[in-house]
Amino acid sequence: MAKVSDRVVRLAVFTLLIIGLITFFSSSSPSAPSGTYTKPSSSSGSSSKDKAADFISKGDSVKASGSDSDSSNSLFSSFSSSSKSTDKLPFDVPDYIDPNYARENATFISLARNEDLWELVPAIRSVEDRFNSKYKYDWVFLNEEPFSVEFKTVMTSLVSGEAKFGLIPKEHWSFPDWIDTDKAAQTREDMKNIIYGSSISYRHMCRFESGFFFHHELMQNYKYYWRVEPSTKLYCDVNFDVFKFMRENNKDYGFTISIHEFEATIKTLWSETKKFVAANPQYVAEDNFMNFISDNNGETYNLCHFWTNFEVANMDFWRGEAYQAYFQHLEKAGGFFYERWGDAPVHSIAASLFLPQDRIHFFEEIGYFHGPYHHCPINDEIRNKNKCMCKPGDDFTWQDYSCTRKYYDVKGLAKPLGWEKHTG
Amino acid sequence: MAKVSDRVVRLAVFTLLIIGLITFFSSSSPSAPSGTYTKPSSSSGSSSKDKAADFISKGDSVKASGSDSDSSNSLFSSFSSSSKSTDKLPFDVPDYIDPNYARENATFISLARNEDLWELVPAIRSVEDRFNSKYKYDWVFLNEEPFSVEFKTVMTSLVSGEAKFGLIPKEHWSFPDWIDTDKAAQTREDMKNIIYGSSISYRHMCRFESGFFFHHELMQNYKYYWRVEPSTKLYCDVNFDVFKFMRENNKDYGFTISIHEFEATIKTLWSETKKFVAANPQYVAEDNFMNFISDNNGETYNLCHFWTNFEVANMDFWRGEAYQAYFQHLEKAGGFFYERWGDAPVHSIAASLFLPQDRIHFFEEIGYFHGPYHHCPINDEIRNKNKCMCKPGDDFTWQDYSCTRKYYDVKGLAKPLGWEKHTG
Repeated sequence: MAKVSDRVVRLAVFTLLIIGLITFFSSSSPSAPSGTYTKPSSSSGSSSKDKAADFISKGDSVKASGSDSDSSNSLFSSFSSSSKSTDKLPFDVPDYIDPNYARENATFISLARNEDLWELVPAIRSVEDRFNSKYKYDWVFLNEEPFSVEFKTVMTSLVSGEAKFGLIPKEHWSFPDWIDTDKAAQTREDMKNIIYGSSISYRHMCRFESGFFFHHELMQNYKYYWRVEPSTKLYCDVNFDVFKFMRENNKDYGFTISIHEFEATIKTLWSETKKFVAANPQYVAEDNFMNFISDNNGETYNLCHFWTNFEVANMDFWRGEAYQAYFQHLEKAGGFFYERWGDAPVHSIAASLFLPQDRIHFFEEIGYFHGPYHHCPINDEIRNKNKCMCKPGDDFTWQDYSCTRKYYDVKGLAKPLGWEKHTG
Repeated sequence: MAKVSDRVVRLAVFTLLIIGLITFFSSSSPSAPSGTYTKPSSSSGSSSKDKAADFISKGDSVKASGSDSDSSNSLFSSFSSSSKSTDKLPFDVPDYIDPNYARENATFISLARNEDLWELVPAIRSVEDRFNSKYKYDWVFLNEEPFSVEFKTVMTSLVSGEAKFGLIPKEHWSFPDWIDTDKAAQTREDMKNIIYGSSISYRHMCRFESGFFFHHELMQNYKYYWRVEPSTKLYCDVNFDVFKFMRENNKDYGFTISIHEFEATIKTLWSETKKFVAANPQYVAEDNFMNFISDNNGETYNLCHFWTNFEVANMDFWRGEAYQAYFQHLEKAGGFFYERWGDAPVHSIAASLFLPQDRIHFFEEIGYFHGPYHHCPINDEIRNKNKCMCKPGDDFTWQDYSCTRKYYDVKGLAKPLGWEKHTG
């Protein structure tokens, strides 16, 4: 037995060595001139995702938006070469286990400012540790200002896929010309006692996340995305390809936490939505999820929405006719500035009206934290199987202020055992 | 090329399948009756470390100290079986890459109470993510009270090696009979304005960590340990086998943070140490590290010590004649109770006097946090190579209250570039 095992191990080591060499050389072809514009290899199924290609294109990505004269380019190149050497560790999650793994056409996306760096780092480390170190999807970072080289160097060292850094076009982060900025300023004054009520940048962010991130040039080649925000955490190992799950199960929108909105921030969102629907009834999906967002068949909005700081979705829906028309209607209504419409209710209402409800999915097994709320699976088997590091007693999912109970009720799903113990 | 690669991949998959099967069946032999007493497979080089054996012996470990009638045994078994299924993932760090990897005779050790569970969980997840998921060393948990089944279930699901849970014998966590408990009580009253000055349990803990943890039956079969405390963090990937490094480089004591002690807690520790050394000069090592702990060749103690909340060391030293005699001297002197001697100065003074200085090692590349101090490598290449998620500006290592500058000076080592920028 020992002998057999020895021989097999020798054979394996030899085989893996060959594959390692082949993957290395087959990837030596240079990546496209600008690393930030290369079509994601996920869709091409090529091996350009292996580490060798990674650090070439990572270099490109950074240089594409960073200054070569910057002092930390040397750190960066030193990182690149060092990174290769750590990849030789026998225990490193090896690309060559499946060099041709067909990733989905998908990317992570994080909207961040340079000053968010150290709040974003643990969030990204968490997603890499719990999921992406196994699947190595790309990561797109967007900012209304150019990213610092420190930001790009740290992020590129952390993410296992290709890191891409983009600038948000001015027109996607400013007042549209039809907005009365005095009226908008008055709103901010009037709303100063409501969370973010007095903030301009928060409103630009909500508008950008509602209508523009999926139009950014770095996002053009991707179909699915997973949104990650600073100061968030994944609690459990995610031992399946979330993007593959979305495609194979025909899902267009996935969430982990749902919650009620502050009514004061969206006073006319529902009336505007009703106007839009009255004028465009053809966009409303059969078997839609209206009963998740309204308790009286659409007369009023019950304030339920998916918390978009975690969001896995199909951008074809945002880019499609129904959502584009809906967003244009909201843009003209001006509520992003005359009130404080969030991208969460906007995404949630659109998904609930214009998608069949079975396209919307709750990731029960993805433990997640965004202050102050925890989604901690209350099912012991799920927690143990996925090494969740959360306290089920902290779970928000089944509490009254959450809307996930309604999600189960409207879909007619069986709630996990003991959910009643987590209400209140 | 594509054809070759395909053929090789097919060959590899086939090979790995065979190895997988062999490792599985070769491990089906049951582990020793009580999982908590099995000799660590690290030293035996057997394959009992693979997942199949893991979850058998993990089960034993828990049952060994847990009640079978407990409701959560079912959770536990459900975790075990589920755990195996996740191990089949192609991207899971695969044991079969090197089924015969010879671990060192080493274990992690965490002293914890049941109520520490949720502070310890992220600390353990951090060590597993940054290091142990690759090497799968065992983990020993010690408590002065029996561990709850919740504690054992959660920890067993988190650690990749075998989890062992032990009870601390009463005589290792109580007043020795020669201690005047009234005098000890008076000390706690007098010291109530000093951190932990009024605490009994803190003193039992310091005494236990100074003189007894390495005598616990669960530690008997191990030589090296890595101590992990609640609410600590590793900042960087540790891409080498720390225990193998210790053995191969003949190191007996490793640290990440050094610092000055509160003088009020150890008023007579140095005079007692001098008495002991005067009576036992034979224990003092040639080429010792005296100049790290004293600025006047031993006349006074400079309060420098290694921060033992992180500690990687060789228990043969603690179990050896010199340390045993030193600890007995300190026990009789009674300073663990009549003052508030910490295990940090006790370990540090002993290592500095009774070990040649080259047996003591600073792990520069292991980024570490224990509130309020960070060890964040200031060397950019180290941080990038190891995906450190810390802010070099937070580093404590080169500040005045740290003793690591002295460590470099006494050893005559070159400090990392730019260390002066991190002083103050």
